[in-house]
Amino acid sequence: MSIEKWGMYELELAGSAEGNAFLDVKLSAQFRCGETVIETPGFYDGGGVYKIRCMPTQIGEWQFQTSSNLPELDGQSGSFTCTPPGADNHGPVHVRDQFHFAYADGTPYYSFGTTCYAWIHQGDKLEEQTLQTLAEKPFNKIRFCVFPKHYPFNRNEPVYYPYARDSAGNNDLTRFDPAFFAHFEKRLSQLLELGIEADIIIWHPYDRWGYAVMDEETDYSYLRYLIARLAAFRNVWWSLANEYDFMLRDKPMERWDNFFQILQEEDPYQHLRSIHNGDPAMNYDHTKDAVTHVCIQNWDVKRVVEWREAYGKPVIDDELEYEGNIPFYWGNISAEEEVHRFWIMVANGGYGGHGETYMHPEDILWWSKGGVLHGDSWRGIAFLREIIEQLPGGLTPLATVGDNDLFPHPFTRWFWTRVSGGVNGGCYLIYLGEHQQQIMPNYSKHGRYNVDIIDTRALTITPGEIKPFDLARMERQTYSESTTPTYYVELPTKPYLAVRFTEKG
Amino acid sequence: MSIEKWGMYELELAGSAEGNAFLDVKLSAQFRCGETVIETPGFYDGGGVYKIRCMPTQIGEWQFQTSSNLPELDGQSGSFTCTPPGADNHGPVHVRDQFHFAYADGTPYYSFGTTCYAWIHQGDKLEEQTLQTLAEKPFNKIRFCVFPKHYPFNRNEPVYYPYARDSAGNNDLTRFDPAFFAHFEKRLSQLLELGIEADIIIWHPYDRWGYAVMDEETDYSYLRYLIARLAAFRNVWWSLANEYDFMLRDKPMERWDNFFQILQEEDPYQHLRSIHNGDPAMNYDHTKDAVTHVCIQNWDVKRVVEWREAYGKPVIDDELEYEGNIPFYWGNISAEEEVHRFWIMVANGGYGGHGETYMHPEDILWWSKGGVLHGDSWRGIAFLREIIEQLPGGLTPLATVGDNDLFPHPFTRWFWTRVSGGVNGGCYLIYLGEHQQQIMPNYSKHGRYNVDIIDTRALTITPGEIKPFDLARMERQTYSESTTPTYYVELPTKPYLAVRFTEKG
Repeated sequence: MSIEKWGMYELELAGSAEGNAFLDVKLSAQFRCGETVIETPGFYDGGGVYKIRCMPTQIGEWQFQTSSNLPELDGQSGSFTCTPPGADNHGPVHVRDQFHFAYADGTPYYSFGTTCYAWIHQGDKLEEQTLQTLAEKPFNKIRFCVFPKHYPFNRNEPVYYPYARDSAGNNDLTRFDPAFFAHFEKRLSQLLELGIEADIIIWHPYDRWGYAVMDEETDYSYLRYLIARLAAFRNVWWSLANEYDFMLRDKPMERWDNFFQILQEEDPYQHLRSIHNGDPAMNYDHTKDAVTHVCIQNWDVKRVVEWREAYGKPVIDDELEYEGNIPFYWGNISAEEEVHRFWIMVANGGYGGHGETYMHPEDILWWSKGGVLHGDSWRGIAFLREIIEQLPGGLTPLATVGDNDLFPHPFTRWFWTRVSGGVNGGCYLIYLGEHQQQIMPNYSKHGRYNVDIIDTRALTITPGEIKPFDLARMERQTYSESTTPTYYVELPTKPYLAVRFTEKG
Repeated sequence: MSIEKWGMYELELAGSAEGNAFLDVKLSAQFRCGETVIETPGFYDGGGVYKIRCMPTQIGEWQFQTSSNLPELDGQSGSFTCTPPGADNHGPVHVRDQFHFAYADGTPYYSFGTTCYAWIHQGDKLEEQTLQTLAEKPFNKIRFCVFPKHYPFNRNEPVYYPYARDSAGNNDLTRFDPAFFAHFEKRLSQLLELGIEADIIIWHPYDRWGYAVMDEETDYSYLRYLIARLAAFRNVWWSLANEYDFMLRDKPMERWDNFFQILQEEDPYQHLRSIHNGDPAMNYDHTKDAVTHVCIQNWDVKRVVEWREAYGKPVIDDELEYEGNIPFYWGNISAEEEVHRFWIMVANGGYGGHGETYMHPEDILWWSKGGVLHGDSWRGIAFLREIIEQLPGGLTPLATVGDNDLFPHPFTRWFWTRVSGGVNGGCYLIYLGEHQQQIMPNYSKHGRYNVDIIDTRALTITPGEIKPFDLARMERQTYSESTTPTYYVELPTKPYLAVRFTEKG
């Protein structure tokens, strides 16, 4: 048998279905390829079927051996061959360069996420339409919940429930429902095929079924079942919660810390781990070791540099408010404003998250149920993604860069609280937003740059020219000799422009 | 002789011109009308002429008597009659209702200021054009400096200098130049005739003549001379500085505190007193007793509620960035953004300050030199001013109002960090900015409101309708029964709208 690198090998074993195998059967395996060892838990999939999954991380021959407290599952061994990854398989995403991400093969990953919280609970027809939309649109990450959602615009019952239920709707929280997970994993695989990272939300407060208030042991058991089932999918990201702070009465801070610790100790692949706040004043302490990146909700995106500095990790503002027109203020900004906020995040070396919440006669809002997009912000986001993917790597905010060729002088930090700018090597991207200067001065020692003027609303890129600063005409317009620019670029007097400088090779 | 209430009575006396009368002669007068007493300093106006000015604050017969260390100025007495004020004379502006302003006759004063820092230094032709522009435009306050300005776009010499100079340009800081002040007061009077408050900036750092670095005694003497000459103009506001924090090396904090104290103790009319920062992190401590209102520079206008709460006084953001296209980021936002920021300030119970900085072939930028307006934000500001002047009084931000008919429920504060809203009595003004909800729900007990939908860009006001919240259609779209609205208003899905609710009488 052969499996491509970062693909999934699945071992299926038959065993006793007596008692409660979900709780009582311990099963794990050690997979080995040369020096590389992966210790991974297995899981009960119902009907006397047990499974162990492995995502091989190295090309070559892999051997494995199982351990179990059930004799028929113990000491099973075998092997498979791990082959080079397919062309679209770059492996799982991890943090790179402290504030950015890359796939395991080194390809940069720039996060352009969207949000469909409950899309996997909508039935095949709508779910397939969602997948079709995702295939056509620019998003390479999607945030969604394991549990169904009870919330405004979300009153429908899910098709599948994660736990067994009796006919009166009472949960048996000691028994998972394998049909739920088969469905979930099918969707996860489809996202993987589309090259979309799955930012899986493990808990959330919007619930009428009891999943939000499970006791501590049940929570831990649920988390471990997810690790056993899902960790071998390379596109998995763990998001402990949506709006964890609204659940603190039932799940105190210590429990969230424990969840992080379990993931850190037991996920064989160390998938990305984060947690998402509700109240902007309730950011989790993202400096904690187990948190791989910052995932926040905050409309005040010009604070991105502050968040980067406070946490020292990649920053994704996954809820910078959604494009839409519902009455809730987190869900009714204009398409232009959504794109504007994305630009501010990205030009400052952070990442944004999209959502869309337009009123719909059947309450099918993209942000929660998926379907099709009715708005326009995805166009501006697609345009931005293309521009970012042409950079040599993620941006470092100019606010935090003292020494650079274009903007080295002492006013630098001051400037970048008003407009947004980032740099990587000889590439600079400045987003001017509501600002509309007629010229953009710079302080380069050599001026050897190609310049592009980007209209983030018209979605056009026009070559500009870097010109020597004309002292005869302009010396009367600068602060002093020490802050006199060397070059400048002419711009149309127009807001929502960006300027890209690329140093000539 | 008769003088209208809040007009100016001027007593002129002849005296010795020997020595340095600016320094050596002490002169003051006591004006009395019944129980009302005004003690006011006089001043030397050059050429053996001394003057004492009085702004009578009460209708009736006024008696006065002078005191001086110069015998010919001492013990002079006389009287005048104070008559009722003219139709356009409402008296000086003071703080009212803690966070707002009113003229002395009780008429509300809503501050819609602009900025022409050095307009009085530009020569008659341009200055008269500036006055013509002010006569046609919506501004009822103007910020400007006593001293000339040296700065980008400001390299010209002033026509008048406040102090005597020799032919080599050396200042004699012991002798004021009466011609300068005669010119200054002429402009001040012209503003008064236009109904425009003069927010007089006493010091500023942008200087090549030596006025920014005068010693402590000279500073105090200058301040006292201004009080003696200018305090009797009813439209005077004292602004200690533009960007005082950039002058701290030469004028330590203690000196600024002393300036405030001198004004508080010696200005007979207690004109408004403020001070303006440069760095947004360097707000003066506006809680100090002598500060009458908050005057700040900050682009981040959604923080206005925070400033109101921190200082407990009226808040004017006099530099929320200027409409224009110069390279400096404080001077190149779009007209739309300028108006947007005004709305955010005003709907939250604060006030904004306008400025305009478009590149000009002769460096005539409104913000500093006056002239004509080239931009468009004044239109949106005029429209806003009309709307505000129809209110019963200044707005209290809904973020700080727990108990009100329309938005009493517990999410109130949360909402108002995203959109802006204020209330006065039964009048509510909500500015939605970048938000574009299709309906605006409210929680009124009775719903007896007239509603207007205001398009802040098209400058239109369209009657809306307050309708019972349609439970059959909408109950699935609210959080829970306790937060279900009672009424709502339909809106077009469009950003930059405001909604005005006026309770039916």
